[in-house]
Amino acid sequence: MTATEDVRLARVALTWLAEPGTRAVHRLVEEVGPVAALDLLLDGGGADRPMRAAVAARSAGEDARAVAEQALARTERLGARLVTPEDDEWPARVADLHRLRLAGADRKVDLETAPPLCFWARGPWPLAQAFDRSVAVVGARAATPYGTHVATELGYGLADRDWTVVSGGAFGIDSAAHRGALTAGGLTVAVLACGVDRPYPAGNTALFDRIAETGLLVSEWMPGAEPLRPRFLIRNRVIAAATLGTVLVEAAARSGAMQTLNRAIGVHRPGMVVPGPVTSAMSVGAHELLREQPGARLVTGVAHVLEEVGRVGHDLAPPARAPERPRDRLDDEASQVLEVLPRRKALALESVAARAGVALRTAMRKLSMLEELGLVIRRDDGYALAPAAARTSPRT
Amino acid sequence: MTATEDVRLARVALTWLAEPGTRAVHRLVEEVGPVAALDLLLDGGGADRPMRAAVAARSAGEDARAVAEQALARTERLGARLVTPEDDEWPARVADLHRLRLAGADRKVDLETAPPLCFWARGPWPLAQAFDRSVAVVGARAATPYGTHVATELGYGLADRDWTVVSGGAFGIDSAAHRGALTAGGLTVAVLACGVDRPYPAGNTALFDRIAETGLLVSEWMPGAEPLRPRFLIRNRVIAAATLGTVLVEAAARSGAMQTLNRAIGVHRPGMVVPGPVTSAMSVGAHELLREQPGARLVTGVAHVLEEVGRVGHDLAPPARAPERPRDRLDDEASQVLEVLPRRKALALESVAARAGVALRTAMRKLSMLEELGLVIRRDDGYALAPAAARTSPRT
Repeated sequence: MTATEDVRLARVALTWLAEPGTRAVHRLVEEVGPVAALDLLLDGGGADRPMRAAVAARSAGEDARAVAEQALARTERLGARLVTPEDDEWPARVADLHRLRLAGADRKVDLETAPPLCFWARGPWPLAQAFDRSVAVVGARAATPYGTHVATELGYGLADRDWTVVSGGAFGIDSAAHRGALTAGGLTVAVLACGVDRPYPAGNTALFDRIAETGLLVSEWMPGAEPLRPRFLIRNRVIAAATLGTVLVEAAARSGAMQTLNRAIGVHRPGMVVPGPVTSAMSVGAHELLREQPGARLVTGVAHVLEEVGRVGHDLAPPARAPERPRDRLDDEASQVLEVLPRRKALALESVAARAGVALRTAMRKLSMLEELGLVIRRDDGYALAPAAARTSPRT
Repeated sequence: MTATEDVRLARVALTWLAEPGTRAVHRLVEEVGPVAALDLLLDGGGADRPMRAAVAARSAGEDARAVAEQALARTERLGARLVTPEDDEWPARVADLHRLRLAGADRKVDLETAPPLCFWARGPWPLAQAFDRSVAVVGARAATPYGTHVATELGYGLADRDWTVVSGGAFGIDSAAHRGALTAGGLTVAVLACGVDRPYPAGNTALFDRIAETGLLVSEWMPGAEPLRPRFLIRNRVIAAATLGTVLVEAAARSGAMQTLNRAIGVHRPGMVVPGPVTSAMSVGAHELLREQPGARLVTGVAHVLEEVGRVGHDLAPPARAPERPRDRLDDEASQVLEVLPRRKALALESVAARAGVALRTAMRKLSMLEELGLVIRRDDGYALAPAAARTSPRT
């Protein structure tokens, strides 16, 4: 199922009229659908007085529909795409934001907690698939070498076990987590607080390029959108809700990362915290959470994280697997061949045969069969796992 | 009230016949008193078969009463003293060991959990007074510079706020905590697993000497007793029960310090744990406790520790203070003079006057008055706080 053009246009226009996550707008969309919701709002109805005033102000100088049309055209030019709840790749888990109720100080700063109306995405992976088995790793921008080391290890370890590493693309912990995942040849997603065409911070441009090539850049804001300060908080709820759990590595007191963790716990995901030296200012927020947030769980490494998210995955996912998958029918030699293929690179036929310990001729035969089954693709530089096979490889 | 000589002798003999903390012996003492308990045991009765066999074996070569007499004589020669529950200075809180129920793995290793029958002590402070406002700081022998730093700070900070710092006199965290307290001019107690005449480890002799001079060396074992391995565990229950709370700073997996913390929680004292880098083997035990022991509370410094033990002190201690204390009646100048006196050193008259900002003559008059009230003592090198005044100085 795909959304009709007017639905897509309406979602984009709505997301421009009011910041993403606005409950009033989302409620209206739930009730009458995006097209009617946009009509209502542009006609000066369908919301309370302040909301109507905001919409009027926003659409006074520019036509919302025209803005949306331009945005969609620009999206296409960029090689990016719009993803809406009507699309198959929509990450359904973000709907849990409906349940998000924040407590304490967080309540005051977070009026915008509704699920997203749409996402912009850049990168080869369908959103739903990328977020399916995903963990968020977030933390301080001014990370210490300790925090950077821990976040890199977590990113690497999670990616190495076929978990998607989700973070915010910021300097410090976020970057370390993304890089760890990339080093493991794994999948990593940066959820941005600005347009996917100009990921912030610019100092991470090379990193964003690598992420866009092998993973995903995701945003609720249209191309060209600025990373305004309040947007980081709005963005954080997506990181918390789209993943199966959030790990915080280093946070100064009252930091954005702490709020992401509180949001994760607010939507009933494991909120995990890595402790650090009590002498480090960058661990103050972590320790504060472990002391004051009853939902926060101390973790010291990948094993603990997997224990937490594994439990959730087990709870949420039906125990039954997909009826039968191609790889379940493979003979031993074909399995061996499939096994030796690296997750994100191609391998020459000779190397495949050598690593699998089979004759060249056998390797060739098995690879052809695997190609037919859609598990392997042939590329100029050799044989590679098909994305689907990479995602369904045996899990630890 | 003091115990008669035969009661003291019986307690010493009993503590030699069976290791301290043996429930069967303690129960017998509770029922018939120490003298009759000793008679019964030496006559081959009053206990179950294995206990009787152990007693018979122990007293086959030597006469228990003669051993006790020699021990008491030796105690006196050493300038040490025996303290029994009949004495005013008995630290009553150790009776809570009656309530100690251990769970999980700890249950198997700890058969000896009864309250002590007696203590040997070396040092100027009455036990009850020393333990009144006390916190245990325990941890790894192979401490890292980080752990040593944190333990020293805790020892210093607690002592500086007039809390007694209790530990086990071992290398590493224990030593750091003792030293921190000594540096603050505070009171520190080493609870030993061997005789107070030969504190273990010998490498800490200079430290033990300083502790004995200004604080206390305490043991359940008679002078000359060896620091046998099982005795450390038996000793740990005293550290846990005699204090208002226990803080663990660094511990390898399955360490003795972890057991002390579990014992503290087992007698309903706050069990506090300082986290550390997850990359440090010396913090593995700390993090394990924070993950697995629901009673363990994360603390990052003195303020958190005081929050925990302050709460307990409030719960346990009656809110009313001693009726009226001399210092409550002091005028402003006398209070100022008292205020500037260091806790464990003497100060010349001129310095007192200068620091208090009063005339020399006033300082002299006020010091005489304070001396009469028993708050100040005159020494060759100047004026010093009387021990009682040092202990009752304003509390944070």
